[in-house]
Amino acid sequence: MNDSYAGQPGSGTVSARISPAGGLDILSRNEVARLRDASSSGLHALLRRCALAVLTSGSLSDDPRGMLEQYPDFDIEVLQQERGIKIELKNAPAQAFVDGQIIRGINELLVAVVRDIVYVATQIAPREFTEAGSEGLTQIAFEILRNARILRTHIDPNLVVCWGGHSISRHEYDYTKAVGYQLGLRLLDICTGCGPGAMKGPMKGATIAHAKQRRRKNRYIGITEPGIIAAESPNPIVNHLVIMPDIEKRLEAFVRMGHGIIVFPGGVGTAEEILYLLGILLHPQNREIPFPLIFSGPASSAAYFEQIDRFLRLALGDAVAERYEIIIGDPAAVARSMVRGLEKVRNYRLDTKDAFFFNWSLHIPYAFQQPFAPTHEAMAGLRIRRDRAQHELAADLRRAFSGIVAGNVKEEGMRAIELHGPFRIDGDPEIMRALDTLLKAFVDQQRMKLPGGTAYEPCYRVAHGENAAPA
Amino acid sequence: MNDSYAGQPGSGTVSARISPAGGLDILSRNEVARLRDASSSGLHALLRRCALAVLTSGSLSDDPRGMLEQYPDFDIEVLQQERGIKIELKNAPAQAFVDGQIIRGINELLVAVVRDIVYVATQIAPREFTEAGSEGLTQIAFEILRNARILRTHIDPNLVVCWGGHSISRHEYDYTKAVGYQLGLRLLDICTGCGPGAMKGPMKGATIAHAKQRRRKNRYIGITEPGIIAAESPNPIVNHLVIMPDIEKRLEAFVRMGHGIIVFPGGVGTAEEILYLLGILLHPQNREIPFPLIFSGPASSAAYFEQIDRFLRLALGDAVAERYEIIIGDPAAVARSMVRGLEKVRNYRLDTKDAFFFNWSLHIPYAFQQPFAPTHEAMAGLRIRRDRAQHELAADLRRAFSGIVAGNVKEEGMRAIELHGPFRIDGDPEIMRALDTLLKAFVDQQRMKLPGGTAYEPCYRVAHGENAAPA
Amino acid sequence: MNDSYAGQPGSGTVSARISPAGGLDILSRNEVARLRDASSSGLHALLRRCALAVLTSGSLSDDPRGMLEQYPDFDIEVLQQERGIKIELKNAPAQAFVDGQIIRGINELLVAVVRDIVYVATQIAPREFTEAGSEGLTQIAFEILRNARILRTHIDPNLVVCWGGHSISRHEYDYTKAVGYQLGLRLLDICTGCGPGAMKGPMKGATIAHAKQRRRKNRYIGITEPGIIAAESPNPIVNHLVIMPDIEKRLEAFVRMGHGIIVFPGGVGTAEEILYLLGILLHPQNREIPFPLIFSGPASSAAYFEQIDRFLRLALGDAVAERYEIIIGDPAAVARSMVRGLEKVRNYRLDTKDAFFFNWSLHIPYAFQQPFAPTHEAMAGLRIRRDRAQHELAADLRRAFSGIVAGNVKEEGMRAIELHGPFRIDGDPEIMRALDTLLKAFVDQQRMKLPGGTAYEPCYRVAHGENAAPA
Amino acid sequence: MNDSYAGQPGSGTVSARISPAGGLDILSRNEVARLRDASSSGLHALLRRCALAVLTSGSLSDDPRGMLEQYPDFDIEVLQQERGIKIELKNAPAQAFVDGQIIRGINELLVAVVRDIVYVATQIAPREFTEAGSEGLTQIAFEILRNARILRTHIDPNLVVCWGGHSISRHEYDYTKAVGYQLGLRLLDICTGCGPGAMKGPMKGATIAHAKQRRRKNRYIGITEPGIIAAESPNPIVNHLVIMPDIEKRLEAFVRMGHGIIVFPGGVGTAEEILYLLGILLHPQNREIPFPLIFSGPASSAAYFEQIDRFLRLALGDAVAERYEIIIGDPAAVARSMVRGLEKVRNYRLDTKDAFFFNWSLHIPYAFQQPFAPTHEAMAGLRIRRDRAQHELAADLRRAFSGIVAGNVKEEGMRAIELHGPFRIDGDPEIMRALDTLLKAFVDQQRMKLPGGTAYEPCYRVAHGENAAPA
Repeated sequence: MNDSYAGQPGSGTVSARISPAGGLDILSRNEVARLRDASSSGLHALLRRCALAVLTSGSLSDDPRGMLEQYPDFDIEVLQQERGIKIELKNAPAQAFVDGQIIRGINELLVAVVRDIVYVATQIAPREFTEAGSEGLTQIAFEILRNARILRTHIDPNLVVCWGGHSISRHEYDYTKAVGYQLGLRLLDICTGCGPGAMKGPMKGATIAHAKQRRRKNRYIGITEPGIIAAESPNPIVNHLVIMPDIEKRLEAFVRMGHGIIVFPGGVGTAEEILYLLGILLHPQNREIPFPLIFSGPASSAAYFEQIDRFLRLALGDAVAERYEIIIGDPAAVARSMVRGLEKVRNYRLDTKDAFFFNWSLHIPYAFQQPFAPTHEAMAGLRIRRDRAQHELAADLRRAFSGIVAGNVKEEGMRAIELHGPFRIDGDPEIMRALDTLLKAFVDQQRMKLPGGTAYEPCYRVAHGENAAPA
Repeated sequence: MNDSYAGQPGSGTVSARISPAGGLDILSRNEVARLRDASSSGLHALLRRCALAVLTSGSLSDDPRGMLEQYPDFDIEVLQQERGIKIELKNAPAQAFVDGQIIRGINELLVAVVRDIVYVATQIAPREFTEAGSEGLTQIAFEILRNARILRTHIDPNLVVCWGGHSISRHEYDYTKAVGYQLGLRLLDICTGCGPGAMKGPMKGATIAHAKQRRRKNRYIGITEPGIIAAESPNPIVNHLVIMPDIEKRLEAFVRMGHGIIVFPGGVGTAEEILYLLGILLHPQNREIPFPLIFSGPASSAAYFEQIDRFLRLALGDAVAERYEIIIGDPAAVARSMVRGLEKVRNYRLDTKDAFFFNWSLHIPYAFQQPFAPTHEAMAGLRIRRDRAQHELAADLRRAFSGIVAGNVKEEGMRAIELHGPFRIDGDPEIMRALDTLLKAFVDQQRMKLPGGTAYEPCYRVAHGENAAPA
Repeated sequence: MNDSYAGQPGSGTVSARISPAGGLDILSRNEVARLRDASSSGLHALLRRCALAVLTSGSLSDDPRGMLEQYPDFDIEVLQQERGIKIELKNAPAQAFVDGQIIRGINELLVAVVRDIVYVATQIAPREFTEAGSEGLTQIAFEILRNARILRTHIDPNLVVCWGGHSISRHEYDYTKAVGYQLGLRLLDICTGCGPGAMKGPMKGATIAHAKQRRRKNRYIGITEPGIIAAESPNPIVNHLVIMPDIEKRLEAFVRMGHGIIVFPGGVGTAEEILYLLGILLHPQNREIPFPLIFSGPASSAAYFEQIDRFLRLALGDAVAERYEIIIGDPAAVARSMVRGLEKVRNYRLDTKDAFFFNWSLHIPYAFQQPFAPTHEAMAGLRIRRDRAQHELAADLRRAFSGIVAGNVKEEGMRAIELHGPFRIDGDPEIMRALDTLLKAFVDQQRMKLPGGTAYEPCYRVAHGENAAPA
Repeated sequence: MNDSYAGQPGSGTVSARISPAGGLDILSRNEVARLRDASSSGLHALLRRCALAVLTSGSLSDDPRGMLEQYPDFDIEVLQQERGIKIELKNAPAQAFVDGQIIRGINELLVAVVRDIVYVATQIAPREFTEAGSEGLTQIAFEILRNARILRTHIDPNLVVCWGGHSISRHEYDYTKAVGYQLGLRLLDICTGCGPGAMKGPMKGATIAHAKQRRRKNRYIGITEPGIIAAESPNPIVNHLVIMPDIEKRLEAFVRMGHGIIVFPGGVGTAEEILYLLGILLHPQNREIPFPLIFSGPASSAAYFEQIDRFLRLALGDAVAERYEIIIGDPAAVARSMVRGLEKVRNYRLDTKDAFFFNWSLHIPYAFQQPFAPTHEAMAGLRIRRDRAQHELAADLRRAFSGIVAGNVKEEGMRAIELHGPFRIDGDPEIMRALDTLLKAFVDQQRMKLPGGTAYEPCYRVAHGENAAPA
């Protein structure tokens, strides 16, 4: 909103004792005590970090440590009182307040932070290891979402997940707002990763459309996790925030709760999310399950999806394109297509008696629920070959992609490359070349920023020849 | 919202039978019959015209006849049915619909149109002549607003009226949004004339802020009248529309319902409204009544208010400036000042036991409740002299201003000048010169458009010398 | 509720300034002033009388003057204040309060009293004479009900009117509660004359059933008029009270709003209401209109309806019995039959596009909308003859019945008989004898109390012989 | 409600698939599966038994096995469907339905049954053993109540627990209704053990009073446990039911949630509850904690409390009477005294920052959280001596009382006495005699029914002499 007139971060601090908005108020004495535990294994540090992210909502910094350094005296305490809980904030960012009063949307986000941290620590963590396998992990994701009261029954499928970059051009941002507006006019709810850019635009557009439609029980859901929330602090339009305990559960929450997904232009993270999603949708057990997936951006961003489309077809075959639709420069067409897709989802769930509010039918392989750490050893274990099952290839492509990005831009990854030399990847040369082309294009479009502005150099070698047995 | 992607007027028509949203549904058989009466004295033509204005909400045309010509086959009928009323629309503008469904906000505006037309025709019109004097007219305004359920008890003063031009620059428009956003963050409601420009921006900004504050019972009130609604069709953010029967009752509604007024840059109409308001506020009976009045615009529009300020001080004396505050380029300061002003209003009403929801104490002279027709005779009757009481001078200044504008830009006024020569005004030459300076500046700033782009020429002669007795 | 533990009337007074509950709060200064007008034509006396009736809600006195004498210092004033209206009560009956706080249900009834008195005085009275004929009177009834927000759209027919005596035996009272309970279990709303006895029991039973069904928007509608309210003060379960300006509009309100009627045992008034209703339902224009009508009581009261049934068949022919059903001692059967009847009403309204909330189709002859004063002259004008159209005969029967009751028990009627001798009625002797039999039975059953406990003596002579031309 | 007209148990069965009312609808696939598990350790049998109790709500049988035998083909299944959960009922008691539709209040009770069974089985049972000591058990009680959404913040203390017999005389029942009515007029909520008699009357009276007060968010809380629910099936006025896992947690729920307690006449169970409560309130750590406790009944039941009072004073000293108040035959006085008591509770919680919704401060000794099985060994371990601390003596008195009752009326207890001879109790002879006197009085008043209508015979011997060291 008129950013030139909005408050700037760092412009001061406020200390206040606030009444939590919404439904937090009941914690046991024991739970309150745990939040105060500032020991190394304690929850206090986590609470403080996530709370600060929420309180700096809307500010532009991209650096999580930055916030903690900018507000070194910030502290938060949860107090038990006679009418419920109070939250004591000390030296909190002034931008979360209007004339000394906390913005209610931010208050609600604080409540969500406390709720999820307490729930995971007291109800989930003690049980986690006893849960076995894929179903157990899904059950955990389900319980966290249920506890957040984010799963709603008796609502036809209407939750559209929007993915895309958090630092996109003004033009792209306006386009995501226009799409959100068209979705909102059609009474759809929005779910994003809850940061800025493509995660904020659709919510803003939908807000105006929902106001015109006099729709009241709108859901602007943000799904995040402790490592991401600081860098992508939720904007205060988000009225349902849930902090999943890790990246994999966050992704699972998106695909089990969302009824359809729109991908806007983004960076390498967005591309990786596309690979994650296709890896699931291409799984044979999911073949029949409808899942509307639309790639969309303004005309000026057409190249981004063309390149991704070309890469996907080359690597996974043309059939992969049946799983998505590309719509350029037409927000109303995006919304109409999504409405049609949701109708198919609805009918499928009715046929299969699956819940509207949680996609139990979708098979998410165990490997997708586990973190992938791109060590040299792990990278050497990938097999980027055309003879593999499509969904397995997609999964390994995502891992390869993830590792290569790390080797180019992440501190830890770059150091590993320096130390041990390039990754060795057992990959089909044509696919690997296409991958390089894609990454180069990202660099050219400034969607991937290399340190020091250097040119893109592959940080791996194709290990195909070496490992292959002599024919 | 992203106007480049919004629907364009004239792009098609839709016929539909809709269920009225909100509270209309109960009409008697007799009332339904009257709406169908297409005789010359009948209500049908009025209904059709106002309904069309609402259905073209958000489109840019400034020409009331244009809409009726553009949708010549448009018709509307109100039907009694078992569950209440239905509204039958034929060949209605497609822009009011999303995929064939009417936008609910527009539906609600239609309901308001029917409600007010029926109420005025059946409950007010038969009694109007029996009501005597100023109090009777105030009672009528009150009853129409009460019937529209727009008066709310048990709410502290929080309704900010925003005035300003309907065709302002993008920069000025963005400023009105920023002010609306700051007002919204402070939980204030917005009331405007409900057209585009400065009447839309504050509502849009407030919508985003209210969403962040999770405020639900927001009021975006539009007050219009049958002659204005077509030219300034209400934007669909407006969730309370009331159609007063004439311009004077519309103005009275603004000042009796609004707890404070912000004036944004506009054209001659805006200047005239300022004179109307000061004419009331300067009345001796209103001396003690607090009424926050702020003139505000972006830095680039500072000149507009400087000129008005200079003119007001010259004509009415420096003391007039105590009744308003000028704030340039600082939306948050505007909102904070308004909050302080509303606190004074609240205390005054508590002290005087006056209602929060209707400013009964304010004295509006009978003359202000009557239309002023700028004939040569009426103009000759004005006395723009410094020796008059301040509020009487302000009232005549407003009339003079109104007449001169008519003589310059309105068809009827221009013809009268052609026919009978310039108006003769019994005016102080210094004040009249200042008025000319002001009008020239408006022409220069393109805030008043002369036909054919001609230069401004005074359409009156100062009659002072002629009428004055020889000294 | 456990009447032995309930507060007794006259046990003290309370003075308090209360905030009106619900929707009254907006009155104009002019309207407030009129309520204060204690002149002979003023509204104050009416307001005071009705308010006192409401405040003594639930007490057992049957004597309207008694209340005013019991609380001679009671007074009420309506005050305009900044947040709306306040009601100042002085020396009000203590039974309306709990520990000094007014019972909210009684507060709401007070609000209804003020609302209807103001509305009729300011909006209806000035127009009444301009309304011509039957339709005009119906329009007035409609507007008063609409203003009371008692007409609800979008609800399927579910409003059951219960008629019957206000001073019935404990056994009969318990039966009305049981019927109300069964109606409530079936999610039906209750409308009565809002006094004690058969007007209270059904509401109480329905309250318990609605609680079990977790039904919240229950309607317990009481319809009264200024002459009746004092004698039959509304019980505080009533959550929608409307004070119609006279008896005829009250009866019209019952039959136009109610979707079906259950008649419990009562006295002569109840019998008169049965004749009123049959007079309408037998009208040829109403032949096709479904209108469920059930006479019901406990087994011990079977005789009451047998006698009425016998009289109706004898006077109006057996066909009259098609318009009603008699169910004895089976509350669930009453409720089930009513549900079936309402289904027919629903279908008929759908077929004829008549409103669910107001029975526009029903023809109520103009004569039924006019008061009948049983003077000797008027009684002589009746024609109780078998050769008349059924509905006309029913109408005159009702008038004859009303006059004879007056001649037996009402002060004014008895004095007229003393002065001018018995009424002369042009009546079929067999019908008149049957009428006598009916009245005697009422006296025997203590349903009609003759002054001094005297035996029933006809207060009329059959004028048939005298007027008839010699054969 | 008019029980003579209410449905009778056993009058037929209905099979239906119902949508659960209220908030149950979200269960995971895993949770649904567990409810279906009919193995011996499975939840299905428990679900079936509790569901049947709820469906026979309001029927008069006192025999839990009776119901299962009366509806041998009854079954229940919980199904996952697209819009949430469905509950499939087979051959369910017809009395739970009205014309084939389940009564909504009963539907909500079913939902509570499923909710609590699932929650305890999946969230509590796996953790129970890891919770150590008194605080852990309190935490469990808290979590079950929180999950039932029965703890409400931001409400001043207003929850009155009513205890008393489930099979009391009509006169006593009417008295409990009158008290409930007076509590309801004062806007208090009611919590009981949710069976008939003194557990139903207060809710019914409060329902009428709440209707008069237009109070909507009423709480009629029933707290039960799996062994009790069948014998004391909740009446359908209960709108919040919670099934605690055992008797001790049920009692803890009463005293931690309730802000005050009214004890009506009852049988031996009621007397035991009084001893339980005094055992807690007399604990030194609870000395300062206000806890309004009123014993009340109609005048005809005065003897019951006189005897208890006499026994308590004799056994525990006159000071014990400071902890309770006896009010006979005055419902309004009971309510007024409770209101005063709640005010003290409120102030105390404010002073100590304890929650309004859960009495964390109250110390409940670990022994009170554990079941007491009255074996001969356990009975021999009691010490009913005046030299003990008051609260310890009260605790042992309760155990002795419990054991003696079991020895007189419970199958298991009577068999143990037959087998091993009378209990030996180390008791002060005077106290033990007083206890006998009390029990005899209960038998005389038919408040304790001995098998075969035999006279009361002590089933114990005072072991004082034997164990005591020679003085």
